[in-house]
Amino acid sequence: MRPLAFTHIRFRILGLAAAAVLGLAVCRPKTTQAEKMTGLIFNYDSTDLFYFTPPEKINGHAVDDQIDLFAQAGVTVLMCNVNAQRTNYASDCFDSFWSGYDPQAGDDQPFLQDMAPQSRRGYRSMITSMKTLHEQGVDYPARVIARCRHHGISPWISLRMNDTHNNNEVRHPIHSTFWKAHPEYWRVQGRRIDYYDRTLDYSHTAVRDRFWRLIEEVLQRYDMDGLELDFMREPFLFKPGREQEGGKILAEWLQQVRKLVEQTARRRGHAIKIGVRVPAHPVTAQNLGLDAVHWAEQGWVDLIVVTPRWATMDTQMPLMQWKRMLAAYPVTLAGGLEIREQAYPDGPARIALPQTAVGTAVTVLSSGADVVYLFNYFSTLSRTVDYWPQQTWLKTLRAMSSIDTLASLSRRHLLTFHDVFAPGEATDYPLPAKGPRLFFRVTTGPKPVGRLVTAVVELTPLAGGAVEAPELSVNSELCDLQSRDQNVFTFSVAQSALQDRVQLVEVAGAGGRSIEVRQVEIAVSGATPE
Amino acid sequence: MRPLAFTHIRFRILGLAAAAVLGLAVCRPKTTQAEKMTGLIFNYDSTDLFYFTPPEKINGHAVDDQIDLFAQAGVTVLMCNVNAQRTNYASDCFDSFWSGYDPQAGDDQPFLQDMAPQSRRGYRSMITSMKTLHEQGVDYPARVIARCRHHGISPWISLRMNDTHNNNEVRHPIHSTFWKAHPEYWRVQGRRIDYYDRTLDYSHTAVRDRFWRLIEEVLQRYDMDGLELDFMREPFLFKPGREQEGGKILAEWLQQVRKLVEQTARRRGHAIKIGVRVPAHPVTAQNLGLDAVHWAEQGWVDLIVVTPRWATMDTQMPLMQWKRMLAAYPVTLAGGLEIREQAYPDGPARIALPQTAVGTAVTVLSSGADVVYLFNYFSTLSRTVDYWPQQTWLKTLRAMSSIDTLASLSRRHLLTFHDVFAPGEATDYPLPAKGPRLFFRVTTGPKPVGRLVTAVVELTPLAGGAVEAPELSVNSELCDLQSRDQNVFTFSVAQSALQDRVQLVEVAGAGGRSIEVRQVEIAVSGATPE
Repeated sequence: MRPLAFTHIRFRILGLAAAAVLGLAVCRPKTTQAEKMTGLIFNYDSTDLFYFTPPEKINGHAVDDQIDLFAQAGVTVLMCNVNAQRTNYASDCFDSFWSGYDPQAGDDQPFLQDMAPQSRRGYRSMITSMKTLHEQGVDYPARVIARCRHHGISPWISLRMNDTHNNNEVRHPIHSTFWKAHPEYWRVQGRRIDYYDRTLDYSHTAVRDRFWRLIEEVLQRYDMDGLELDFMREPFLFKPGREQEGGKILAEWLQQVRKLVEQTARRRGHAIKIGVRVPAHPVTAQNLGLDAVHWAEQGWVDLIVVTPRWATMDTQMPLMQWKRMLAAYPVTLAGGLEIREQAYPDGPARIALPQTAVGTAVTVLSSGADVVYLFNYFSTLSRTVDYWPQQTWLKTLRAMSSIDTLASLSRRHLLTFHDVFAPGEATDYPLPAKGPRLFFRVTTGPKPVGRLVTAVVELTPLAGGAVEAPELSVNSELCDLQSRDQNVFTFSVAQSALQDRVQLVEVAGAGGRSIEVRQVEIAVSGATPE
Repeated sequence: MRPLAFTHIRFRILGLAAAAVLGLAVCRPKTTQAEKMTGLIFNYDSTDLFYFTPPEKINGHAVDDQIDLFAQAGVTVLMCNVNAQRTNYASDCFDSFWSGYDPQAGDDQPFLQDMAPQSRRGYRSMITSMKTLHEQGVDYPARVIARCRHHGISPWISLRMNDTHNNNEVRHPIHSTFWKAHPEYWRVQGRRIDYYDRTLDYSHTAVRDRFWRLIEEVLQRYDMDGLELDFMREPFLFKPGREQEGGKILAEWLQQVRKLVEQTARRRGHAIKIGVRVPAHPVTAQNLGLDAVHWAEQGWVDLIVVTPRWATMDTQMPLMQWKRMLAAYPVTLAGGLEIREQAYPDGPARIALPQTAVGTAVTVLSSGADVVYLFNYFSTLSRTVDYWPQQTWLKTLRAMSSIDTLASLSRRHLLTFHDVFAPGEATDYPLPAKGPRLFFRVTTGPKPVGRLVTAVVELTPLAGGAVEAPELSVNSELCDLQSRDQNVFTFSVAQSALQDRVQLVEVAGAGGRSIEVRQVEIAVSGATPE
């Protein structure tokens, strides 16, 4: 398990020399295009390269090498993320990651003093790399974009619209001066019960203006194909209960962003798209003031990424509902994958197996999404996770552009959960579940014809300790127990039982006794032995 | 509380003389109309009139009187339900309610022998009334339709597509010969764990053919404006896990129904619409094979009624999602109200207060529905429920055609739950909820300006017994405790706290202690004192 990759961020700056490439072309670009995006969209976080490349090795070629790897992996659209609360390039409006940091001073310098001592070394290395690259005169986003164009990858800039990593440590160096200076703009006043209580409240003009300036800056400096507004870091932009009036303010603001993007597109002489990342469930998105369907209807967005936040891949995103609501509008619907897998909140979790990523991508593409979107799928996984060697990473990502290729691989369809709810929404976690007879829906995509299919369930030992094998049916057809490993039971699923899209797994306790199920999976073997 | 009205049904037959009114007009009617239905849609169950009208009082005028009352109540579309497993008229293809019954024989006659003795008297009275009306030469559906036309009410015939009341008593006289003779067509074989295990499985041709004949018959006999296929009695039409392939069979069948209806419309010389009743949640509907959005897209339906099944009014139906998915199609979206209110499954329940009906209707109309649809809102409520005197029933129903009129009345917005889930779907019951700080969303429709608004919560006594007043906020604004009645706490909600559409109610235990909330409500006073 990669220790820090998720609770923590890493990032760079660029010389002013590279800024403001003002094209003079004034032809009218087609800024809203009906063509759907295809291939594979990859979000590349602002810190990964710098966290894993020490200052003595960072340079423009290191940036290029990373993009070359994305090209090899079949990435067609790169979302180059450049910020959390700070930017990884030298911004005129945001603090850069290294603003206030002295590479020569010790770990006890004021900049680092509110950070846990054991975290300082890695963090210093990361921000030193960013600063070093900047001082070499390499403008990271511009370099990324240039190398993307070299490979025919479509380059976007992705902005995290409300990142609040480490918000329990209010003086942590990751925070912006703005955030620290204005607790009155935090979403919830006077308490921090929830991780999201300290996100910024977009109903304040000052908060919107801050992000507006960042948008202006990246549009002015970088020749992108699209601008992504990443509302999934974090999707809580308004005071609890004020999301509807907040959503109206945000909508008006987005309309202005669209205008600015269109002006820029005219200046650049080519279309610039707008993308948004929003929660998996359309009702949740709307309840949070992130009404992406309305935005599509108004023509303000070209790409909608529907995604879990972080806790797990979400294998039950209602993509068909999204697709139907968006049917009339020229937008691409992407299905987002996170790198983590977990069956229920606070349950055991791990970096997803490649087979789980494949399975979820199959689900996404067969449920209505036009394209797969990866988040946190770093090539550097190979350094920390033994089951993600680089060849596996390349092969897996290369498959993501085609449901046929994906479906030919061995894959796991895991039952997971929605990890974002608006305040007051009732949760609908399918696991763990308790009772004498339990039903679960596992979304699997097209019926796997001529493949070995198994259903796997894990039971929790209840009072008494011993766990008996349950009875298991798939789509009302009884399955044979194939093997047992402790409390994990694997059943063979006959071809005749299989259905398109979803398999209904029914688990009954032996002798009608109550059981607790804590993991459910349908596994499909590859078309050819691996 | 009305004792039998919900676990049990009541119903009639008609002389063959009235059948087959074959019009000769061949003008091309506009069978699919873009105009939305307006006013108030009322489903009138096949048994109510006969249950409450003793045989010595039943006649054509009793039927007319009932329709006159609907006219007074502002009903604009009457869904005349004529069947459960049997018909309340003399059908050529279905058993009528009284087929096999001997009015002269005693309570111990074979027809009644598997019925609980205490239920026999009421049931006999009901079916004797149906038989009596038939023997008077009055064709109930035809009489209803004629009287509707007299009043300008649009008459529809509503068919329950899979009613299985009393399915735990397999020889109960309510069951059809077909259902009793063919347990092999029951949805689940070899067991009855769930109420829905003995519904008919529509993947069998014989099952579809049975309902096809009923549709043919009513279309041939009765000059209706529309035909409603009521899939909410019961929405489980396929073997668990076979709903997707089943849904395809059903879709093909619906296409044939549409053709038949169009042929009939041409013969009659006027449009005949098709309506369907489906579960509140579009994902659930789709997962059950009741893919109403697809049906609309194909032009097979003109009216979609989104509704809870029975347990409670559902105050959180995602109508905006339905509206958006249906935006491109010429269908009316109706929001269904049931007559029961309940905060959580197996919790205390009652016949809804009129104010709850008003509140839910406001919610429905302001959430995206074109029109309100009432089910089980019998005028005979006044005989059994003291808070539904006839004047209240009339006033409440009359208000249902207009959100402005509704919103001027005093109303209650209760937090309830979805009462239908497809097999394996995880439930999302918001109540009861336990913890030190709890959030609830109460859908209220337009912001109630200039009205007295209160938030009401009921707490469960936890270990220790005494219940302290909690702290309550609405949309992050603290509210003053106004009164306490045992464990029910009423708070005043300031105008400044109120939002459009939804109020977020936050309840925190005194001193940060854990509480259990089991009922949440927002009450709005009427525009004028009542």
